[in-house]
Amino acid sequence: MRVDLGNALDDVASPGVARADLDSLDERVADAHERIADGRANDEHGYAALNLPDTVDPDAIRSAVEPFADADAVLTVGIGGSALGAATLANALESDVDAYFLDNVDPEHVRTLLDDVSLADAAVNVVSRSGTTAETLANFLVVRDAMDAAGVDWTERTFVTTGEEGNLRDLADRHDLPALAVPEGVPGRFSALSTVGLACAAIQGHDLDAILAGASDGADSLDGSLFESPAYAYGAVSYALDERGAAVNAMMPYAESLETFAEWFAQLWAESLGKDGVGQTPARALGATDQHSQLQLYRAGPRDKMVSLVRPVERDDRAIPETDLPGLEYLGGSSLGELLDAEFEATEASLAAAGRPNVRVEIDRVDERSLGELLYGMEAACVLAGELYGVDTFVQPAVEWGKRAARGLLGGGDFEEADAVADKRTLTVE
Amino acid sequence: MRVDLGNALDDVASPGVARADLDSLDERVADAHERIADGRANDEHGYAALNLPDTVDPDAIRSAVEPFADADAVLTVGIGGSALGAATLANALESDVDAYFLDNVDPEHVRTLLDDVSLADAAVNVVSRSGTTAETLANFLVVRDAMDAAGVDWTERTFVTTGEEGNLRDLADRHDLPALAVPEGVPGRFSALSTVGLACAAIQGHDLDAILAGASDGADSLDGSLFESPAYAYGAVSYALDERGAAVNAMMPYAESLETFAEWFAQLWAESLGKDGVGQTPARALGATDQHSQLQLYRAGPRDKMVSLVRPVERDDRAIPETDLPGLEYLGGSSLGELLDAEFEATEASLAAAGRPNVRVEIDRVDERSLGELLYGMEAACVLAGELYGVDTFVQPAVEWGKRAARGLLGGGDFEEADAVADKRTLTVE
Repeated sequence: MRVDLGNALDDVASPGVARADLDSLDERVADAHERIADGRANDEHGYAALNLPDTVDPDAIRSAVEPFADADAVLTVGIGGSALGAATLANALESDVDAYFLDNVDPEHVRTLLDDVSLADAAVNVVSRSGTTAETLANFLVVRDAMDAAGVDWTERTFVTTGEEGNLRDLADRHDLPALAVPEGVPGRFSALSTVGLACAAIQGHDLDAILAGASDGADSLDGSLFESPAYAYGAVSYALDERGAAVNAMMPYAESLETFAEWFAQLWAESLGKDGVGQTPARALGATDQHSQLQLYRAGPRDKMVSLVRPVERDDRAIPETDLPGLEYLGGSSLGELLDAEFEATEASLAAAGRPNVRVEIDRVDERSLGELLYGMEAACVLAGELYGVDTFVQPAVEWGKRAARGLLGGGDFEEADAVADKRTLTVE
Repeated sequence: MRVDLGNALDDVASPGVARADLDSLDERVADAHERIADGRANDEHGYAALNLPDTVDPDAIRSAVEPFADADAVLTVGIGGSALGAATLANALESDVDAYFLDNVDPEHVRTLLDDVSLADAAVNVVSRSGTTAETLANFLVVRDAMDAAGVDWTERTFVTTGEEGNLRDLADRHDLPALAVPEGVPGRFSALSTVGLACAAIQGHDLDAILAGASDGADSLDGSLFESPAYAYGAVSYALDERGAAVNAMMPYAESLETFAEWFAQLWAESLGKDGVGQTPARALGATDQHSQLQLYRAGPRDKMVSLVRPVERDDRAIPETDLPGLEYLGGSSLGELLDAEFEATEASLAAAGRPNVRVEIDRVDERSLGELLYGMEAACVLAGELYGVDTFVQPAVEWGKRAARGLLGGGDFEEADAVADKRTLTVE
């Protein structure tokens, strides 16, 4: 992973960071790095995620999914961090085994998805640390019912990824299902490189060792200076730009296969840093498509955002055929990859020309190793940013209110939050 | 379409709009409405989009696609506004005819897409008003080449949607391809309800008349008061919240089928309003999934955003089977739809409880009529907001710089913008 901060400097952009301010910030990065290193050494909650390249056991994952070697498809039933890491890998890497995700409780979506998947030939992975996540358990009950209805023995096609105890662990014990353990001390949004993110990848035939080797490279590059560590460079400059007014971070990969990566990043960034009144708002974008959608705003709207431009340096290319269409001769003999790279560089330069801060993030190519490095790097960037903001990176207390309200509304107990729903202020226009 | 502004008022939220301020704003809405009505009466550039329910000819669309009645799939080759309207309808409505979109020039994506689509059985719609959009024409050349390689007569499977003259029009004349006209005065992002958005829907067998009837209802509801028109209510309150600090508008439909709608909205909002240093930044979200991703930030991060919560009032539902899993008995006997609705209301209330402004937008159900009304309503909301901001809603000048730079980089002419790319400031960390 390479990070280029040039277009985030204040001689290019406004907001921008003065070179001298980066030097001062680097002293804070050194302190934060010590805190992170301590947290890792003690396997503290959250920091433990940065030890996953050493602590995860890929053999245990391969062994747990071995009964599903015949599967044509893998269906992950999970939500948020229980789905996004696996989905990021699945949508980035090609496989003959299709990956599906039940990460929402929309009944129409569930129906169409179940119409698409042959449950007899699928592996179903139910992912919930607590075993009580309402959406995930509701979907599991529906899927199990659908397997029954299709004459499929659900105990033959299901495994669980869950904590050491709880509903799903008990279920696995009772029915002798393969069970993977969600690692202790690793919040869902930091679990892509654990059992949670890797089981789906294993069934799809991806190289877990290469993913973890890339992540290890990311871990090795963590250093006490933002000028030595790409991950810290990204985290530190994002923080510094936010402090100077870039409240929005538009994550814009130039690769369709990284579209879900941007979604994963959005969870990582929002849920980790969005608290105590601070935190950058992640916006998901996709190059080159969103040049025709978001770029107008990024260049000419409020000076409240930075753009993160991510690309693989290498990709399989495809030539553009020669043409005699007037005005398009220049495209012929070129390639789609060259066009995409030209657009990447043009967009980067166009933002700089308008004085809009942007950061370039490059990986070698979209493969297992580089993805491991990218995911690890962004997690480390996020942890560093959390230290700089001074927030508790690894908790998400603000989502509990709504969970209690929803449970109360469904008759799952007395919750004052549910009563508040009825008091809604209305001003309806129809 | 119903819009509930209750949770945007300042007795609920901060930022929030005082009820008295809404009354003052309504006077400006009345003026803006007159301007809009004048623009429509004269079919002025941009305003003409709001006349589409009357001016579009669904028979011409049905007739142009009639040769593809046998198609198993429709492949739209277009980018930005030339793809997003059609994609919004295609991803919202079910069909036996698959819809694919080539809206990016990623060579790896193009390859996997062409592997998936049987070109002999597909209808290919090439959409570009000018006939010179680099991405679209490059992709068309590649697709045409792939058809040749597969022994498919491309002239039998291709039609174009383009302006009255240019490359694609000439091509259609030369090879006797069906050709649909992009309407004059309608920018791409406002073209969902025209030939541009509706040809794909026609091939998929959707009811164009119902879509246009819904749009007509939307047009009929435009009135000189935000208290009488849901579209104006949405546009006016979004503007007012932005003026009070809600620089981000998180568009969060509670329906998987409306995920692309949020993307379409993001283009509409960003490209129309993002100029002269103003404009809300649209953020795409999805309920209930993003409660496990973005809600922490929305509730506890900076007070710089509003959340737009969109849902269909009716949907096909699916029961959740009874269960004896401890702590989950409350889910059994309920349904996925009830769970989703409970989460919608819980999220709305949880934002209000944290004093975060949010707006509820409801449609009857995800069907042709309601989609027509929703798309029209959001377009009208955007036009109104543009009047209130005082921007030129229908242009996107800031994207031209990058287009020239990319063209120059590819050897398509001398452009000083391309030279600027080489001058990039770098500060690389690796």
